[in-house]
Amino acid sequence: MTKDAAARAWQELSALLRERALLESLTSVLSWDEETTMPAAGAAHRAEQQALLAGLIHERDAAPRVADLIDALDGDASDERQAATLRVVRKRLARAIAVPRRLTEELARATIFAQEAWRAAREGGDFALFAPALETVVGLKREEAAAADPGRTAWEVALDEHEPGLSESALAALLGPLEAELGRLVSDGIGRARPEAAGLLARPVDEAVQAAFALEVARAIGFDESRGRLDCAAAHPSTIAIGPRDVRMTIRAEPGDNTAALFCTLHEMGHWLYDVQLPADLWGDPAGEAMSAGLHESQGRLFEAIVGRSRPFWIWCLPRLRRAYGGFGDVSLEGMLAALRRVELGPVRVGADEVSYNLHVAVRCRLEVALLSGALPVADLPAAWNAAYERSLGLRPADDLQGCLQDGHWAAGLFGYFASYALGNLAAAQLYEAALAAEPDLEAAIERGDFGPLRAWLGVHVHAHGSTRGLFERLRAAAGADLSVGPLVRSLEARYGAGG
Amino acid sequence: MTKDAAARAWQELSALLRERALLESLTSVLSWDEETTMPAAGAAHRAEQQALLAGLIHERDAAPRVADLIDALDGDASDERQAATLRVVRKRLARAIAVPRRLTEELARATIFAQEAWRAAREGGDFALFAPALETVVGLKREEAAAADPGRTAWEVALDEHEPGLSESALAALLGPLEAELGRLVSDGIGRARPEAAGLLARPVDEAVQAAFALEVARAIGFDESRGRLDCAAAHPSTIAIGPRDVRMTIRAEPGDNTAALFCTLHEMGHWLYDVQLPADLWGDPAGEAMSAGLHESQGRLFEAIVGRSRPFWIWCLPRLRRAYGGFGDVSLEGMLAALRRVELGPVRVGADEVSYNLHVAVRCRLEVALLSGALPVADLPAAWNAAYERSLGLRPADDLQGCLQDGHWAAGLFGYFASYALGNLAAAQLYEAALAAEPDLEAAIERGDFGPLRAWLGVHVHAHGSTRGLFERLRAAAGADLSVGPLVRSLEARYGAGG
Repeated sequence: MTKDAAARAWQELSALLRERALLESLTSVLSWDEETTMPAAGAAHRAEQQALLAGLIHERDAAPRVADLIDALDGDASDERQAATLRVVRKRLARAIAVPRRLTEELARATIFAQEAWRAAREGGDFALFAPALETVVGLKREEAAAADPGRTAWEVALDEHEPGLSESALAALLGPLEAELGRLVSDGIGRARPEAAGLLARPVDEAVQAAFALEVARAIGFDESRGRLDCAAAHPSTIAIGPRDVRMTIRAEPGDNTAALFCTLHEMGHWLYDVQLPADLWGDPAGEAMSAGLHESQGRLFEAIVGRSRPFWIWCLPRLRRAYGGFGDVSLEGMLAALRRVELGPVRVGADEVSYNLHVAVRCRLEVALLSGALPVADLPAAWNAAYERSLGLRPADDLQGCLQDGHWAAGLFGYFASYALGNLAAAQLYEAALAAEPDLEAAIERGDFGPLRAWLGVHVHAHGSTRGLFERLRAAAGADLSVGPLVRSLEARYGAGG
Repeated sequence: MTKDAAARAWQELSALLRERALLESLTSVLSWDEETTMPAAGAAHRAEQQALLAGLIHERDAAPRVADLIDALDGDASDERQAATLRVVRKRLARAIAVPRRLTEELARATIFAQEAWRAAREGGDFALFAPALETVVGLKREEAAAADPGRTAWEVALDEHEPGLSESALAALLGPLEAELGRLVSDGIGRARPEAAGLLARPVDEAVQAAFALEVARAIGFDESRGRLDCAAAHPSTIAIGPRDVRMTIRAEPGDNTAALFCTLHEMGHWLYDVQLPADLWGDPAGEAMSAGLHESQGRLFEAIVGRSRPFWIWCLPRLRRAYGGFGDVSLEGMLAALRRVELGPVRVGADEVSYNLHVAVRCRLEVALLSGALPVADLPAAWNAAYERSLGLRPADDLQGCLQDGHWAAGLFGYFASYALGNLAAAQLYEAALAAEPDLEAAIERGDFGPLRAWLGVHVHAHGSTRGLFERLRAAAGADLSVGPLVRSLEARYGAGG
């Protein structure tokens, strides 16, 4: 191929990728609408809209023209960006050829109905209202995985959607030691003896006041309202990127926890910064989009868990919280940190302390493997869930709302996603260590409410790269070491341990 | 063609139409999002999303397979529904062949940017911020019309998008006499001498209280929250149908007008009922969708202007308003009706009294004709607008906010749409007369807050028919007479005249 012909082929491929990404971004608008706005009776029509988009995306992934282009460009990639493009497009093509369009459309429909059923089951407190729809989704995910790659387990195939290239064994090599370390910390009683903290976070603060304060903090971290939204709604907190300059967050305030809105916001701001700091000029190109869910979650957890429970952050934040909330004049920095660093095992993942959080993740991973392998029938999920909690955390949920109905991920077809939270926690600790080593004044800046150095470091070492590399390679490049359990354990010991 | 082959062809055509309608409904989700949620910086990406959808719809309209199917089915239509399908599909095909996809996509983009520019111009009170974007839209609309039908004026082609089949001359034959009659009523001073009304509608009522009362009235009329939304937002009031069971309204409360939210709601409820009473099983088929913008507007105006300013409605509504607002105990039924039936010429169309409303429409129609013919350069619009108001209503807007920046229609590419408001006013009066003649107890029911008979009559005579017929034919079928000026003038004289 001549140089000109190659340039034309790259250009054509880029335009096709852009169109595909636009279709994806339409599904994001629909998801945002479902989370925030859509009336219940709209679900049936929404299922058809999502199925059509899924079908149109499938059609583009499987297009013979795409196959011709990547054949022609084979070996022509001259940089990381082009190499990533060929890798991603090849993978999508293979998958789209293997998984029939009909199945993709059915899954899009089934997950809309399953999410409705999950909401109804939560309202009615009755798992039976959710079970048939979940069964449909599990069946379709099994069928999809068998079509996509019959040589791998269904769970590993699902995992690959969120963490490209990650094998079950590579994940187990991290989660196994992590669970063991966390078990040790828990039995050592880390973060337990903090009686002075009781009640502080439960002091009533009006939800609107919480939301306004969360917005103030978001702005300090870098939130720019012209490029996004921060809505305090009843829904599950989330960040949805509609386009490169339109990234929206929902957060939740809770009457019984006066820092709930703040911590949601810190988490979603991590995601927000990642999405708005992706290279906008490469939008639609793999080099312009986030690939690894674990890396995305690492950004949320870095702000929520690590920065948000650090001394420098609270040196800056506490006087502002006192001003915003009123009546917190008696709360000392030490008291606040103690309250936020309490370890208390409970049945709910969201809002769990940092030490036990990954134990929840491990439970879900094991249950997912069993569901997708067929070993665990959906009907037996509630009992299996409760038994797994008994074993891992030594407690039984009071009911299914506190148990297997707490998360909507499976209803949405998100199997393999929970692992990304654990990977995100590990990566967050490791990235923060690396950032501190590279920028010794980073925490001094945070004490002054200046998040610029942290934002810049993450921008350069994480955000700017899109998905040119996977999570493991990116970590190696950014932190100079393989992803490992050490940094998170060190961070937990330093902050939750005696004298933390 | 055998019977079986024909049945298969109809089925295939139906499936293609459904897919096209799903794409259209995606543009509706985007429009809803733009009206209610999208941050300013999201416009550039939104323009790309809308352009993609416009292109995909164009591709379906021009598909050779569609041409083959309608050729094969020519003469095979066995009922009104199938005849309408062939008529509509044939028209779309011809238009898509004539108007290049590129132009359709450019218009989709340009209207998003023009709407942003219009908003900026309103904020800055500066027409110059809007003029370049409007010029682009006008140029593209002219180009589009010339491609679509070089034998007709650009304005008539634009008109046809909203009122299929309507010619400029047929419209003039209605608007000319209407303007003359309204001019006569205005110079007779109809509805002027109502001093007792002054101040009543300006009594301060909290916007949230107004919105809550509007919702109460909407529910009485038939609003069902599981199938839609009623959001009180700062945006322009509108009704957007996302799907057959998901129809959403935005309304606006105004501090200086305590019935603003109520009247928006009455208007949007007319649209809402139309959309939810369309035959849902025919969704995607022309027989299942509204076609004439005039007929749609007639439903809004019927509830807002005619029912909403009628004695029976206020016999039911006033005690409820007193309860909801508090402090209106001194307001009599006669006082309220007098306040609502005041004629007072002003520069703004929205909220204009019923008598002068159509004078505003006539001004816009004349300006549109001049803009699209090229006779009026965009730069001269503000001066032309003010001169036209001077001539028709005898007043000059204080500034462009009260003048040519007041409506966003042209920014959205909606030329020819204003005529639909006038047609809607005429049709509303005529339909209400017909409904009263057919259902003599209809107003007695409204006095009791029972809107069932009106809803049912409109359902049977208007909503159930989708777009099997155009506005004029539908009116003839529903009201037993050609659309004419008489019923509206009679209605205005009865309600706004002495003793009304």
